[in-house]
Amino acid sequence: MKDSEYKIGIDIGGTNTSLGIVDNNGRCIKKKSFSTSANKSIEEFIAKLVSSIREISTISSREVRPAGIGIAAPAAQRREGLIQNPANLLWGTVNIADLLKQHFDIPIAVINDSNAVALGEMKYGLAQNMKNFVAITLGTGLGAGVVVNGELVNGENGFAGELGHIVVEPNGRMCGCKRRGCVETYVSATGICRTAIELIANELDVSKLRALTYNELTAKTLYDLAVAGDVLALKAFQVTGEIFGKMLASTVVSFDPEAIILSGGLVRAGELLLKPTLKSFDENVLSSLGGKVAILPSRFSNGEGAILGASSVVEITETVSAD
Amino acid sequence: MKDSEYKIGIDIGGTNTSLGIVDNNGRCIKKKSFSTSANKSIEEFIAKLVSSIREISTISSREVRPAGIGIAAPAAQRREGLIQNPANLLWGTVNIADLLKQHFDIPIAVINDSNAVALGEMKYGLAQNMKNFVAITLGTGLGAGVVVNGELVNGENGFAGELGHIVVEPNGRMCGCKRRGCVETYVSATGICRTAIELIANELDVSKLRALTYNELTAKTLYDLAVAGDVLALKAFQVTGEIFGKMLASTVVSFDPEAIILSGGLVRAGELLLKPTLKSFDENVLSSLGGKVAILPSRFSNGEGAILGASSVVEITETVSAD
Repeated sequence: MKDSEYKIGIDIGGTNTSLGIVDNNGRCIKKKSFSTSANKSIEEFIAKLVSSIREISTISSREVRPAGIGIAAPAAQRREGLIQNPANLLWGTVNIADLLKQHFDIPIAVINDSNAVALGEMKYGLAQNMKNFVAITLGTGLGAGVVVNGELVNGENGFAGELGHIVVEPNGRMCGCKRRGCVETYVSATGICRTAIELIANELDVSKLRALTYNELTAKTLYDLAVAGDVLALKAFQVTGEIFGKMLASTVVSFDPEAIILSGGLVRAGELLLKPTLKSFDENVLSSLGGKVAILPSRFSNGEGAILGASSVVEITETVSAD
Repeated sequence: MKDSEYKIGIDIGGTNTSLGIVDNNGRCIKKKSFSTSANKSIEEFIAKLVSSIREISTISSREVRPAGIGIAAPAAQRREGLIQNPANLLWGTVNIADLLKQHFDIPIAVINDSNAVALGEMKYGLAQNMKNFVAITLGTGLGAGVVVNGELVNGENGFAGELGHIVVEPNGRMCGCKRRGCVETYVSATGICRTAIELIANELDVSKLRALTYNELTAKTLYDLAVAGDVLALKAFQVTGEIFGKMLASTVVSFDPEAIILSGGLVRAGELLLKPTLKSFDENVLSSLGGKVAILPSRFSNGEGAILGASSVVEITETVSAD
C-alpha cells in the first residue's frame, strides 16, 4: 500500500483525544487515545498530538507519510480551520490547522465533531445508502450531525444541528451555553449524573449513589450500579431515556429522517438507555411518522465514527490542495 | 402575452381557499378567494374551485388557457398529487390533482402549503438570494417550510419542517395531532384565542373578552381589542410572542438559517406580535447565534406567497409533462 493511501483522523473531545490512521477502505488500522488535558495550554496539547500522530504513522517499523489529516473538534469552523472558543476546552479560539501545519506539510482539514460522526456513518457506517438522517452523539454533551438531501446541514454560520441546545424544560437546568433547560443538560454523560443527583434528593430509595459525591460520579459508575440493580441508578437511565425519546420525537418533525443513529459513551449502556428511549419516542412521535424512523445504535466502536469521518474530509481537501 | 405564460396558483386552507393567475414575472394579476367549507363534500369543493379557476382565467373578456395549475394544500403529497387526511379538512385522502384533471387538461402539481410559501419567498420574495431560511406561516396552525443548501427540506416522508408540532410545553394543550403541548396550540390564530381564554381564567383584569364566547373569538377580534387597549387582549399577544420567540430560538439551533420569514393572518398584527417575539428570541437564542438571524415579516400581501409558490411548482412539472 502506498503512503498516500493512508489518512489520519483525529477526534478532539473535552476529555479525551482519539486518533487513528485510516486506510482507503475506511479501516482504522492503528489507534491511540490520550487525555486532552483541556486546562493545559494549546502548545502542550499540540506537542502531545504531534508525537501521537508520529506514533500511529509508524507501521511495520516505518513512519509512513499520510495523504492528509482530518480533525474533528467541537465548535470547529471548517473554512478557516479554527476551533472557536469551545465550551469544554479552555484554549479560546485557535487555528488548529495552522498549528499542525508547522509539523506536517500535508493537507489538513477541520470539521465539527458531530458532523464528522455523520460523515463517518454516511461514508462507512449505517447511513451508507441514506439521504436523510441524523447522527447523535451522547458524550460530555449531546452533539448532532444532520444530513438532508444527501448533504451535511451546516447552516449560515456552521451552527445548524446544534440539537443539544434545544430547550426541553423551560426554566430547567443551567447549561454551559448560559441558558436553561437545554436537552444536553439531561441527555448526555454529564446530564445523567445530574439526574442521578436530583434523584438522590427527590426519592427515598436505598442506593449506593448516596455514598458518592457528584465529583466522583460518572456515567460508567451509574451503568455499573444499574446493572447491579441499584434502584436510583436504574431510575436515572429511565428518566434520561424518557427525555431523550421526547427530544427525538421533536427532531423527527424538524427533519423527517430515515434514521437516527446513536453513538457516544452513554449509548454503550445499551438497552438500559435504549429501551426507555424507544418507548418514550413511540409515545411522543407524531402519529404520521410513527414506525417510520429507525433509531439505531452505531456499529462503530467508541469514537471510531468521528475518526473515520474526520479522515474522509481530507479527501475533499486533497483534490484541491497542491501536493 | 401568450396563454402559456400564465399559471394558476391555488392555496387551500382550512378556512379559505385563495387562487390567482400568475404571469411569468411572478405577478398575481387576478385573485379570488372563497370559503373552503371543509365540512362539505370534496365534489362540492371541486365544483367551486373549477368555476373560480375559470373566473380568474378570464382576462379582458377572454378565457385564457394557463400553462398549468399548482396547488398548495395541508398534508399534500407532491409525488402522487394527494391531500392526505389533513387535520383541518374532513375529506380524508383525496387525489386533488386527478380530480382537477377531469376539468383541465394541463399539468397539475400539488405541494405542501408551507413549502409553497417557502418557494414563493425563494422565487419572488425576501429569500431570493438565500440558501438557508425558514418560512413560517401563522394561520389556523403553525406551518413551516425549510430551505437548506438552496433546497426544500422534505424529509423521507414529506413531513420535514412540521415545526408546528414541536412540543414546547410538556403536558400542555391538546393538539389536533393528538399529542399535548405542540407549539401551534399556542402560536397560531387558534392558539392565541386559547391563550385569551386562559387569561380570562387566570387574571382579574377588566376586559371585553369576558363578554365573548370562545366560539365568537377570533384573532382579528383580539387584535382590534388590543389596539383599543384591552389589557387581556394585549397580554394574549405578549404571551404568544414570548412562546414564539423561544420556539424560534430552538428553530435556529436546528437549521442556523440566514432568516426566518413570517407570514399568515396573525403576523398582520404587526408590532403587537413582533415586538414580544423579537424580545423573547433575543433573550433565548444561543449566544453564538445572537444577532445573526433576521426575523422578517413577508412582503407579500396575505396568502400571495403560497399562490406564487404553488404556481412556480408547475414550471418544474411543465418541462416533464408532454403538452
